[in-house]
Amino acid sequence: MTAPTNLTLADQIISRCRLLATFTETPGETTRTFLSPPMREVHAIVGEWMHSAGMTTRIDAIGNIRGLYPGPAPDSPRLLLISHLDTVPNAGAFDGPLGVILSLALIEHLHAHHTKLPYAIELVGFSEEEGVRFSKPFLSSLAVTGDITPEDLARTDDNGISVTQAIANFGLDPAQLPQARFSPHTFACLECHIEQGPILEYESVPIGIVTAIAGQTRTDITFTGQSNHAGTTPIYLRHDALAAAAEWITAVEAYSASHTDSLVATVGRIHVEPNATNVVPARVTASLDIRHAEDELRKRAVHDLIHKAHHAAERRKVAVTSHLQLEQPAVPMDEPLSNLLRDAADRVGAPNRSLHSGAGHDAMILAPHIPTTMLFLRSPNGLSHHPDESVLPEDVAAAYATALEVLSLLTP
Amino acid sequence: MTAPTNLTLADQIISRCRLLATFTETPGETTRTFLSPPMREVHAIVGEWMHSAGMTTRIDAIGNIRGLYPGPAPDSPRLLLISHLDTVPNAGAFDGPLGVILSLALIEHLHAHHTKLPYAIELVGFSEEEGVRFSKPFLSSLAVTGDITPEDLARTDDNGISVTQAIANFGLDPAQLPQARFSPHTFACLECHIEQGPILEYESVPIGIVTAIAGQTRTDITFTGQSNHAGTTPIYLRHDALAAAAEWITAVEAYSASHTDSLVATVGRIHVEPNATNVVPARVTASLDIRHAEDELRKRAVHDLIHKAHHAAERRKVAVTSHLQLEQPAVPMDEPLSNLLRDAADRVGAPNRSLHSGAGHDAMILAPHIPTTMLFLRSPNGLSHHPDESVLPEDVAAAYATALEVLSLLTP
Repeated sequence: MTAPTNLTLADQIISRCRLLATFTETPGETTRTFLSPPMREVHAIVGEWMHSAGMTTRIDAIGNIRGLYPGPAPDSPRLLLISHLDTVPNAGAFDGPLGVILSLALIEHLHAHHTKLPYAIELVGFSEEEGVRFSKPFLSSLAVTGDITPEDLARTDDNGISVTQAIANFGLDPAQLPQARFSPHTFACLECHIEQGPILEYESVPIGIVTAIAGQTRTDITFTGQSNHAGTTPIYLRHDALAAAAEWITAVEAYSASHTDSLVATVGRIHVEPNATNVVPARVTASLDIRHAEDELRKRAVHDLIHKAHHAAERRKVAVTSHLQLEQPAVPMDEPLSNLLRDAADRVGAPNRSLHSGAGHDAMILAPHIPTTMLFLRSPNGLSHHPDESVLPEDVAAAYATALEVLSLLTP
Repeated sequence: MTAPTNLTLADQIISRCRLLATFTETPGETTRTFLSPPMREVHAIVGEWMHSAGMTTRIDAIGNIRGLYPGPAPDSPRLLLISHLDTVPNAGAFDGPLGVILSLALIEHLHAHHTKLPYAIELVGFSEEEGVRFSKPFLSSLAVTGDITPEDLARTDDNGISVTQAIANFGLDPAQLPQARFSPHTFACLECHIEQGPILEYESVPIGIVTAIAGQTRTDITFTGQSNHAGTTPIYLRHDALAAAAEWITAVEAYSASHTDSLVATVGRIHVEPNATNVVPARVTASLDIRHAEDELRKRAVHDLIHKAHHAAERRKVAVTSHLQLEQPAVPMDEPLSNLLRDAADRVGAPNRSLHSGAGHDAMILAPHIPTTMLFLRSPNGLSHHPDESVLPEDVAAAYATALEVLSLLTP
């Protein structure tokens, strides 16, 4: 199969993403959360495109739009192409929708050229990946793997509406959730997504082969010193919680920088008490977010950095406690599938590199169940979750060509 | 004159302070702001004590209670003894009231012993030192020196009530403000106050002779970097405003610690944007509070520390701006008067040391007009602006004996 790497097609994919971005809960920006009214309009449009591409469609009980491009037989092996259609508040046009529209374009090509593949393709446009409405991400891929829990369904949004109620309000039947599960014939899963980071751009590479989704630890570190009058308390008699935290934050950055194997450690949030100009800070709580594709290395980093917090605190007679908020193991992508993706990219002449994803994706929910991998597209300025989020047409063309090549290389 | 250093008197002074602390706007704690209802009750009690000590009393137009212990003639030289009767929210019993009650005890002694001095004594219990109600301190001493401005009088509290209106609401006449000014016969001013810091305790000295009130600079330093995804942005591509600020905060502490001549520099307040666990901080605004008794040294420190902010920011490609909030020169105490205070302490055998005040006091408003000095009492645990604020009876006895000795040494 030859790859139509023309930019016209890439421009069409981008235009479609920008069209979907106009369907929003908040005029003037793009905000489209789980089971919100504009999602219904997106379903209508994407469903029409799917029909035109020879697919049968349905909305499953969690609100995913699913198009099936049939294989040789009703029980043919099935490839899943996935991405999500919900957005963060004031989002860009590509985080999520690009993967759906790019995958759709592949099927349109197959349909237009009457290409026969030895398997069926199911395209899933997930309804909930960002975790905005119910403060928990991946609800819709968890429904597809059967991993959604009664606790998940009982979660409530800011208006006190539960997930179950939201499903019913959208005109769907919560009792049908078991029918949202993926077909047992499914043999592989591919997600295309923008990188949402600066690595591909920094290295001038249009696409990336994801080898793993990083594990993540979030822990809060609390430094407890003593508040004192900033004018009357000499430095040698202070127990300054912010000075201790500051020394530690500098150490976190240095530790992360000294690990060139892509460990990232971030202090993004800090809360200071009493937070007054003329009072020596009594208490500081700082967040620590550590990610790495290797769980052992991440755990060692957490241990080392908590140790460094104690070190910074002790000499100021400040106490330290840590409170684990989240511990999420790394999820490796399927190696043969990733290798196939790399071969495909090489065959179509698309420069590529392997990398892991520091952000979570639906692929990590699917991966424990189905051989799964991800294809990343370069993010200009590393920008995402922002109205200025963008993609380059030539990168969309490279990703499209690579994915189309994968379809021909794949054997169930 | 001999000094009655007995602890019974000290205990009585402490008991009176604790009694005044029960007059509060907020039941269960001590909160007594400028011209609040409980101040009226405090006036009644203190006024009665003043009367019993042979003083004539009045409430001036800014709400200060003023007792005059007459001298040999109507136009005798006059000594001012000052402190304040308002408090911070949830205050202790001694910051302010102790100076009034201790001074009152001196006059009670003179009255009881029919001691004749060659001058009159005016005791002023200021109504507004803490700056709580109108977000500006020293309003009542500014009225006494004639330095209160129309802008000050137009300031409004949280209920939109102006200073002028608050005066009228308290039953006073704003037109009488000029009569609040100190008598032209005034030749000296003494303020007794708790240290509100840990130095005297650290050096095991009961009382301190204040040589100056430190000058102060407050400036906000803003670090502007770039927000990025904490999971996808490698350290070497970040512009982390919090990491830059943290390095600088550590440098501020180290700079201050290396200046053993009692420079204090504090970062007490920090504001981080967006302040989210999984986002590299884009912008940090941190407060810098620098105090020293020598203005040149303070100014050099401000310069050096802003330079250090740029240094910490540059290597992360983070921008720095600074915004001056307050610049207040140091106020020296009157040297002959401070020497007299030291002589008095030595004569009564009260161990003492000279120190400067890192906090502001009414004495610094009076000092440019009248030879003024301050006597500090040790603050256990350096604690102030806190319900557990305390004084030791033996320190009250030492301060009382010293001040009584000063009265006999003073010559107008």
